[in-house]
Amino acid sequence: MKRIEIRTTERDEFVDITPLVREEVRRAGAEDGLCLVYCPHTTAGLTINEHADPAVAADILAALDRLIPGDGPWTHLEGNSPAHVKASLLGASVQIPIVDGDLALGTWQGVFLCEFDGPRTRTVWLRFLA
Amino acid sequence: MKRIEIRTTERDEFVDITPLVREEVRRAGAEDGLCLVYCPHTTAGLTINEHADPAVAADILAALDRLIPGDGPWTHLEGNSPAHVKASLLGASVQIPIVDGDLALGTWQGVFLCEFDGPRTRTVWLRFLA
Amino acid sequence: MKRIEIRTTERDEFVDITPLVREEVRRAGAEDGLCLVYCPHTTAGLTINEHADPAVAADILAALDRLIPGDGPWTHLEGNSPAHVKASLLGASVQIPIVDGDLALGTWQGVFLCEFDGPRTRTVWLRFLA
Repeated sequence: MKRIEIRTTERDEFVDITPLVREEVRRAGAEDGLCLVYCPHTTAGLTINEHADPAVAADILAALDRLIPGDGPWTHLEGNSPAHVKASLLGASVQIPIVDGDLALGTWQGVFLCEFDGPRTRTVWLRFLA
Repeated sequence: MKRIEIRTTERDEFVDITPLVREEVRRAGAEDGLCLVYCPHTTAGLTINEHADPAVAADILAALDRLIPGDGPWTHLEGNSPAHVKASLLGASVQIPIVDGDLALGTWQGVFLCEFDGPRTRTVWLRFLA
Repeated sequence: MKRIEIRTTERDEFVDITPLVREEVRRAGAEDGLCLVYCPHTTAGLTINEHADPAVAADILAALDRLIPGDGPWTHLEGNSPAHVKASLLGASVQIPIVDGDLALGTWQGVFLCEFDGPRTRTVWLRFLA
């Protein structure tokens, strides 16, 4: 299984991993099928959204912060419950078609690692199915 | 890769695409596996929910509008940031088992294209894996 | 297709089904691939999150309750619209890599059936792809 390592620098941050995922798909020589991008963390997630204008990612992060304010109340004692909630709202994986050996994304789409409890070193797993 | 085209008529709208997806699965002759339904847009998404009573889709749309009100504040200048947020909350794909050449959905389940920035012509991609 | 039956005991509840899913993956003898865990219900969903501290699941449930309060307003007459909304926010399936015949989850990750309209008997479907 392929692994991608990502160093995040903020508490909440979207990191565009599209070029890294695309490179692994090409390197794997997968012709047609599906790419599973999997996040093995519980305070980070994955999403697909516009990556042309970085303001879109910033707006999604700000909206999530308004939805899940830090003051809770929370029972989990580590203080990062909002990060767990955001991770479940966005999800732990994305699935993308592979066509002719390349990721088949829409024109404006990119793949983001969604950090909600950084900064940390995160890993993303890749799985190709024909 | 199979493509389905959908013409939406409202800004926010759930379009039941279950019959279209089912027809493509049957036509593809896929026996057992998985159907990936993929939305290549960043202001629309996909979800699986009840399609017997249209009031359910209306209630989900209204709840999303209450969660992500239009007044933000937003930094993305196109004015459709709520649509991007809703797209990430619901997700860009759904995965459904294929059993005996047919979609294996639960009794009340249907597949919806979720329009959040319409009206537009949308495309949905289908991928079958055995 | 493998099926797991789960008896829920609360209206809102996360049931950790990780051991049940893992057992089926091992029993199936799937070597490397992907496990699709599919929820055929429209008022329940699936998520992957921390299962070491049960307070995390409790905090996610409480946050969802604050996001989607019962008083709506709603048009669906069965009174369980919040459950339908929560099901779409978390999603009807999770996809997990299978490596060396075992579920490849992150260290803190578990798979939860998310009951939003219990108590009921729920079924989860499993599909393995190589």
